[in-house]
Amino acid sequence: MQATSTLNGIDLDQLSGTIEAVSGDPTLARFQFRARNHWIDGGFSRSTIKDFYGVGQEDATRAQAFSVESDEPPVLLGENRAPNTVEYVLHALAACVSGTIAYHAAARGIALDGMETTIQGDLDLHGFLGLDGEVRPGFEQIRVGIKVAGDFNDSQLAELASLTRFSPVRDIVTNPVPVAIEVGRA
Amino acid sequence: MQATSTLNGIDLDQLSGTIEAVSGDPTLARFQFRARNHWIDGGFSRSTIKDFYGVGQEDATRAQAFSVESDEPPVLLGENRAPNTVEYVLHALAACVSGTIAYHAAARGIALDGMETTIQGDLDLHGFLGLDGEVRPGFEQIRVGIKVAGDFNDSQLAELASLTRFSPVRDIVTNPVPVAIEVGRA
Repeated sequence: MQATSTLNGIDLDQLSGTIEAVSGDPTLARFQFRARNHWIDGGFSRSTIKDFYGVGQEDATRAQAFSVESDEPPVLLGENRAPNTVEYVLHALAACVSGTIAYHAAARGIALDGMETTIQGDLDLHGFLGLDGEVRPGFEQIRVGIKVAGDFNDSQLAELASLTRFSPVRDIVTNPVPVAIEVGRA
Repeated sequence: MQATSTLNGIDLDQLSGTIEAVSGDPTLARFQFRARNHWIDGGFSRSTIKDFYGVGQEDATRAQAFSVESDEPPVLLGENRAPNTVEYVLHALAACVSGTIAYHAAARGIALDGMETTIQGDLDLHGFLGLDGEVRPGFEQIRVGIKVAGDFNDSQLAELASLTRFSPVRDIVTNPVPVAIEVGRA
């Protein structure tokens, strides 16, 4: 029986096993994530998230679906029943860059004692309202500040900063993703 | 006293008032949304979402902060305590395109009886793991299917389909957003 080696909350044997498995059979790296959204009224809707495909099979580990709601604040004609959709993008991006740092730091043997991330996104409502075709509907820019605690030197800190390049959500937000949308009758 | 006119759950007087206000003073359209993320371990973290700036002032309508967690499934070395970050992107995109259709349909006098959206995103783990520099970390493509119920004709259905062009999250995902990241010591 071997002792389990864990760093930053990540099982290092399992991490190296995943890397070896994917290196041996690239098809294992194919994932498909999914959600279903039920519109209720205005900007209020509820998504259900459960199944996904990865490592060569449909995942069956989630006994129950996650339920995630979105709404708007009153100034955007909602009732504050949940964060709005662009705030979820900020959550996803902040959580993804910090998680990505934690995983890749573990693979490099760098222990983290804590990490706090602040994020802000600037948006001009002219785009959403369709009042100015020159103004994009989404964020014009996003700023992320990450404070990491741990016993590492300056060179390692610089390495940690570079690890966000592996973040899936950073890539999704900073680079174009093709989105195919079909609208039909229910 | 006037009767309140509501369509798709949206107060039409308030909607036209917002459009008039922004047309009269473009600075009112400037919004800044924010989140704070607290990393716990591995891919598990918790975001706090409360304040934002918009319509010329700091918003004060949320008495309590929203708390949103992310985790990974076991196959990605987590414990399924919450959806993962790319699933939140799918939620945000699905909720945003449906909400955008609801708002702009209301502005055009088109009543919706319901809307269901399915969404899938394909991702190759080689990118996140840093095993292949040619593979992006994020989604390679996303497919969205929207089924709308209501008493509208084919021309109006085509108009509904075109309204997703105003969606902030669709813009964020399909077009590049500049993201500035600073990493420092806690």
